[in-house]
Amino acid sequence: MQAWDQLTARIHELDALGGAMALLDWDQQTYLPAGAGASRGRQSAALGRIYHERFTAPEVGTWLDALEASSLDRVQTSAVRNARRRYRRATVLPGRLVEELSHARTEGFAAWMKAREANDFTPYAAPLQRLIDLTREQAERQAAPGQHLYDALLEDYDPGSTIGELRPMFERLGRELNTFLDALAGRPHPAGFDALLDVEGQRKLSERVLTDLGFDRVHGRLDISEHPFTVGLGTDDVRITTHFHADNFLAALGGTVHECGHAMYEQGLPAQWAGTGLDKAAGMGLHESQSRFWENFIGRSPAFGRYLAPRMQGIWPTLAVSPDTLYGAMNKVERSLIRIFADEATYNLHIIARFELEVGILEGRLQAIDLPAAWDDAYRRIVGVVAPTAKDGVLQDVHWSGGAFGYFPSYTIGNLYAASFGAKIQEDLPDLHERVAHGDFAGILGWLREHVHAKGHLDDAPVLFRGVVGDRDPVEDMVAHLWNRHGTLYGVQRPG
Amino acid sequence: MQAWDQLTARIHELDALGGAMALLDWDQQTYLPAGAGASRGRQSAALGRIYHERFTAPEVGTWLDALEASSLDRVQTSAVRNARRRYRRATVLPGRLVEELSHARTEGFAAWMKAREANDFTPYAAPLQRLIDLTREQAERQAAPGQHLYDALLEDYDPGSTIGELRPMFERLGRELNTFLDALAGRPHPAGFDALLDVEGQRKLSERVLTDLGFDRVHGRLDISEHPFTVGLGTDDVRITTHFHADNFLAALGGTVHECGHAMYEQGLPAQWAGTGLDKAAGMGLHESQSRFWENFIGRSPAFGRYLAPRMQGIWPTLAVSPDTLYGAMNKVERSLIRIFADEATYNLHIIARFELEVGILEGRLQAIDLPAAWDDAYRRIVGVVAPTAKDGVLQDVHWSGGAFGYFPSYTIGNLYAASFGAKIQEDLPDLHERVAHGDFAGILGWLREHVHAKGHLDDAPVLFRGVVGDRDPVEDMVAHLWNRHGTLYGVQRPG
Repeated sequence: MQAWDQLTARIHELDALGGAMALLDWDQQTYLPAGAGASRGRQSAALGRIYHERFTAPEVGTWLDALEASSLDRVQTSAVRNARRRYRRATVLPGRLVEELSHARTEGFAAWMKAREANDFTPYAAPLQRLIDLTREQAERQAAPGQHLYDALLEDYDPGSTIGELRPMFERLGRELNTFLDALAGRPHPAGFDALLDVEGQRKLSERVLTDLGFDRVHGRLDISEHPFTVGLGTDDVRITTHFHADNFLAALGGTVHECGHAMYEQGLPAQWAGTGLDKAAGMGLHESQSRFWENFIGRSPAFGRYLAPRMQGIWPTLAVSPDTLYGAMNKVERSLIRIFADEATYNLHIIARFELEVGILEGRLQAIDLPAAWDDAYRRIVGVVAPTAKDGVLQDVHWSGGAFGYFPSYTIGNLYAASFGAKIQEDLPDLHERVAHGDFAGILGWLREHVHAKGHLDDAPVLFRGVVGDRDPVEDMVAHLWNRHGTLYGVQRPG
Repeated sequence: MQAWDQLTARIHELDALGGAMALLDWDQQTYLPAGAGASRGRQSAALGRIYHERFTAPEVGTWLDALEASSLDRVQTSAVRNARRRYRRATVLPGRLVEELSHARTEGFAAWMKAREANDFTPYAAPLQRLIDLTREQAERQAAPGQHLYDALLEDYDPGSTIGELRPMFERLGRELNTFLDALAGRPHPAGFDALLDVEGQRKLSERVLTDLGFDRVHGRLDISEHPFTVGLGTDDVRITTHFHADNFLAALGGTVHECGHAMYEQGLPAQWAGTGLDKAAGMGLHESQSRFWENFIGRSPAFGRYLAPRMQGIWPTLAVSPDTLYGAMNKVERSLIRIFADEATYNLHIIARFELEVGILEGRLQAIDLPAAWDDAYRRIVGVVAPTAKDGVLQDVHWSGGAFGYFPSYTIGNLYAASFGAKIQEDLPDLHERVAHGDFAGILGWLREHVHAKGHLDDAPVLFRGVVGDRDPVEDMVAHLWNRHGTLYGVQRPG
């Protein structure tokens, strides 16, 4: 198996390069001196070029050919399938297109920043159209015969997911969520929690929560950055960042718990498969399911309020805070304009609206110039709100300005997976909530380690998901969870 | 000039890779999680291999051939000379030797750590002999016809310096230093300064001193590490680390000022020559001259005591400290066993002893097994002390265990350059000490920027040095400085 040894040696090298690239990026968002952008840009670009060159080298194709003609075991079969998919997607794009896309992304991002600042979509239309055209060309080249263009993009983020499966699921979810939100509308909201809490105390408590949840500090660390993120430089080096605001403790803590879910997934990936590419996430939706599971299913539960309240009291002894206050404050639900601030339910409507628009773009029915009106129309029908200006509407997200069409579904795929994982884990660990209330998260993490993390990318996420939850219906699991989670707080019951 | 464009593009890429490698190393010494050593090792090794591969590629030789046959301007001539030297040194070594050296360094370092821990040279002898044999083979391959083997090693660290020039200079310096130390022996030492000072205050003051000296924080930063070091990831990203001890403020501050000297050199290198290789230090000795100039010539001067005392008072209002106390405490002189703790004068005797031993090793007169006795003999004759055990003698330095023979002279070359720079700058800026006392270091930094930093590696250090100081005698400049610096404190005068 000479080809196997050569392929794994190359993957080892690419992973090492990828780790170095991740460090360049982590450092850029945490400690890079303000004036060092130029050399950092050259470093990232050089490593990116070398990575691409070594990944798309002809010998990689030769090794894959040889392996595909050989008899392979289970691990090798998955490794070759994953590598072939990435190799094909990278090598079908002509160098000219790769360069034009890279250029259009830089231009698109700059134009989006300016348009957002000016609260005016117009000057962004042309650069966005350029990105749309190039992305459609990319999808056309990457699509297999008969494959929907949108699926060709999805494959980058969520291999195995398809528009054929997502569309009906999202439609059903949208109807259910609207029924749910209509039932809550007009009911009084639970009380908020807006005590000013010193940042040093917040940091201390966040460190404590991370440790309790099971974040491994021997193989990870926590730093501060403008926008929270998680990055794995290797399964033995997973880094979280967060950002504290004195007046918004619960949001910062929720963000940290979210990133912790991402990080524990990275830390739990199967290190013994290093060099096969199977020690990686099985998809962005599955990655997101791990962050959402901890952020929402655990982190907004009444039991988590019981865990958190005494620990807050320990740090701020004069603070008046009860488990019920925290439970209520973390679960305010209402239709809203901005995706990143949306509650657990409404969030998915934001995604469903974007999905509809993206499909329209890929099918050639929507051009950049049509987007402001199409956005407002989709929001009116799907989310039930309309933005007064572009800044809170079509200009709110960075994704499209970087050419990331097809990424948004990952968020709701993640929420759906998380809902069924939550329902399943509750069956397997009936005393789950008592454990959470007592700060014992080991059984929960152990369950995720065994059923999700340790499987790496042996299968694509949809297959992994089915293997764990059987024939559970994730839409039903999410909707049941939402009625249950918010029903008591809002005094409503699911219509029988 | 197609070859010129190709060469500079390659140097740009190598510098970007080198910056990424430097970040991997910086992170390893500052923030790397304790359990992440394995993936960091793979990342550094992968980048190292790629760097070597792209630097020693045959096309680089072709470009150099073409350029050497062309008419070149001053910058191009220097760039091609530097690149050719590095290229020749790297490509004359067979892959087998490079691998054996790399392996022997790892083994040597581990053996040295154990030997030092056990305070027993014996088990270190064999791995050290292996390093000696491989280093001699390396030098034989790299040496030009008729070149001394030691010069072939020096060229890596201090191109342009030769044993023919160093040997008589070091002999004369050794005699002068011994006369000086004999004169001080038996005289009462100035009082020490050992107040316990909180680390937070030390950090604040160090930040203040760095800013005053001229360290550019927009293009640099200060962090904490076990061993202080400076690293340039680019001229726009230069990082210092330091280490504070509550009971040893002056040593920590001295270390920070030392690193600041290195860092300001890196920040002052000519960014406009990026891609030519001339935006780099002209040698390790010259690099060291910049750290020693600030640490010793400025940082231990009476004027610096006048600058520092009121700023210490500002941080620790109840502290009793005078400029004279600081001046005295920073300038205790005595023959000592350990190089890294040695005073400004004795330090050079430590280097001269090592130089003599290294030359003996390279000339084949000393084997590893002879070193403990040869070390003690050299120390008795040159430094005037003998270590009671190996730990404080032949095992004290890490350098040889990593195969770094030929590096030690850089330290004394740096001290000698610094002495003549000091004498010259005092002529050019007669009110230098008044400026220092008032915390005005801009003129001094400006002088170094113009005469040293901005010249990059256009010339090798010995040529640059002569261009700045003319026919000054660095041995005389150093000796005169030492009598002057310590004479008052010890109540002695240089014999007329």
